[in-house]
Amino acid sequence: MNVAIVGVGLIGGSIAITLKEKKVATKFVGVDKSEGNLKKAIQLGLVDEGMTIEEALDQCDVIFLTIPVDAILTLLPSLLDRVTNQVIIDMGSTKERILAQVADHPKRGRLVAAHPMAGTEYSGPEAAVPNLFNDKMMVYVDAMDSDEDAFETVEAITEQLGMRTTFMNAHEHDVHTAYVSHISHITSFALALTVLEKEKSQGRIFELAGSGFESTVRLAKSSPDMWTPIFRQNRDNVLEVLQEHIKQLQHLKDVLDNEDYDTFYKLIKKSNKIRKILK
Amino acid sequence: MNVAIVGVGLIGGSIAITLKEKKVATKFVGVDKSEGNLKKAIQLGLVDEGMTIEEALDQCDVIFLTIPVDAILTLLPSLLDRVTNQVIIDMGSTKERILAQVADHPKRGRLVAAHPMAGTEYSGPEAAVPNLFNDKMMVYVDAMDSDEDAFETVEAITEQLGMRTTFMNAHEHDVHTAYVSHISHITSFALALTVLEKEKSQGRIFELAGSGFESTVRLAKSSPDMWTPIFRQNRDNVLEVLQEHIKQLQHLKDVLDNEDYDTFYKLIKKSNKIRKILK
Repeated sequence: MNVAIVGVGLIGGSIAITLKEKKVATKFVGVDKSEGNLKKAIQLGLVDEGMTIEEALDQCDVIFLTIPVDAILTLLPSLLDRVTNQVIIDMGSTKERILAQVADHPKRGRLVAAHPMAGTEYSGPEAAVPNLFNDKMMVYVDAMDSDEDAFETVEAITEQLGMRTTFMNAHEHDVHTAYVSHISHITSFALALTVLEKEKSQGRIFELAGSGFESTVRLAKSSPDMWTPIFRQNRDNVLEVLQEHIKQLQHLKDVLDNEDYDTFYKLIKKSNKIRKILK
Repeated sequence: MNVAIVGVGLIGGSIAITLKEKKVATKFVGVDKSEGNLKKAIQLGLVDEGMTIEEALDQCDVIFLTIPVDAILTLLPSLLDRVTNQVIIDMGSTKERILAQVADHPKRGRLVAAHPMAGTEYSGPEAAVPNLFNDKMMVYVDAMDSDEDAFETVEAITEQLGMRTTFMNAHEHDVHTAYVSHISHITSFALALTVLEKEKSQGRIFELAGSGFESTVRLAKSSPDMWTPIFRQNRDNVLEVLQEHIKQLQHLKDVLDNEDYDTFYKLIKKSNKIRKILK
């Protein structure tokens, strides 16, 4: 089996490392619009050689799309036009718009939409690590729209990646990720902007930054190239959760403003219920 | 040297473990208003025996106050009334109100105000761990108001804890902690409340929760007993940073609402500058 990784960054590179270790494929082909990234991915041994996307599609059995979601949206129709029996795996973080666009494509069955709930705040081929996916959740989206053999191929790969699996439709997926992934990023961006603003007037502010601060702002290191298209495609859901989040913050602020510490205590206590979710 | 730990929880217990390992004291005395906590602390070997706070003050050379900041505010004047040559270390997370209250006390010199920038989201004696303080920052606050020998005693202990040190006045300290610690907690509380609210209508939401989500909400596990008094005492500074944070979130929301993705991209890029702060 030949495997193509379109976008040799954190996700694509980590897939390649892990599948190489498991000897899942005979050849790994890298595709990247950045020649520097591609060169680095070959140097790092993530992929064996570089190709254009057309060459890769023609010569490989499985094609992973691990590029920003706007690029997936643009690229996918022409890839499906060219596909015969290969399997294309869309690994983007948003699904509704991408899948709507190819819903009626005659080759829709060759596409498997999956979202690995794994990542770090880093990007690029150097950020690729083995075991990134181990014990993480792979979300299959609208799996019924994929051909059975295409889905089975991806299922076997997901197993090699050591992942757990779940199934959702595209709308559910985009709503859920807005709540448990996209909003966390917006919060971190806003928090970083808040303290960076303050630092201008109070230079020493970060001297005291501890692990709590680090944990809440680390996502603010995330790549704008990857995240702007995600927010664009999941705009409506993100706006809804963002509005609710601002409402909760404003409520905490009002309670503090009114020195209503009993209510403040109860709100913290209520938020503690998150313990049942987190390990 | 006999050391008293008033409040045998995460911080107090971790100090005891670390100093025991270094054989800094001959005896560790525990004081806690919860008999259960005290019993557990003795069982866990964090302290050798339990006492009332008056007994502990009379029989120990160094007294750590590792209790919620409202309890420190209430307790401190009477402790200073009783003190002779012992050293009292206030380890609270807020300083301005506590230190203002004892500013004119004739025994003010026996008090050293210090804030270890270390912790986890857990509490109680079971949460105590060795090396919690290793390479973390100890902030000495208004150190000039402490007697020289008292300060030197604390400095020697801080060194045994393996900490780095810095100096600030009480006002600076409270402003800075509002920005790099207290706001992170409010953000996490609000985020937890937001998603817990949504879960009621969309049961499966947490199935997709990954490490990014976990990292931004983990502080929402924090104890309301510890944190409500912190927000009470640092209310003005926290309100200021909270207002700025809501403004930043609202700005991101407006930009997304207007589909101004160029500006959205630039804001993420700007927030990326946090990289220079975090490792």
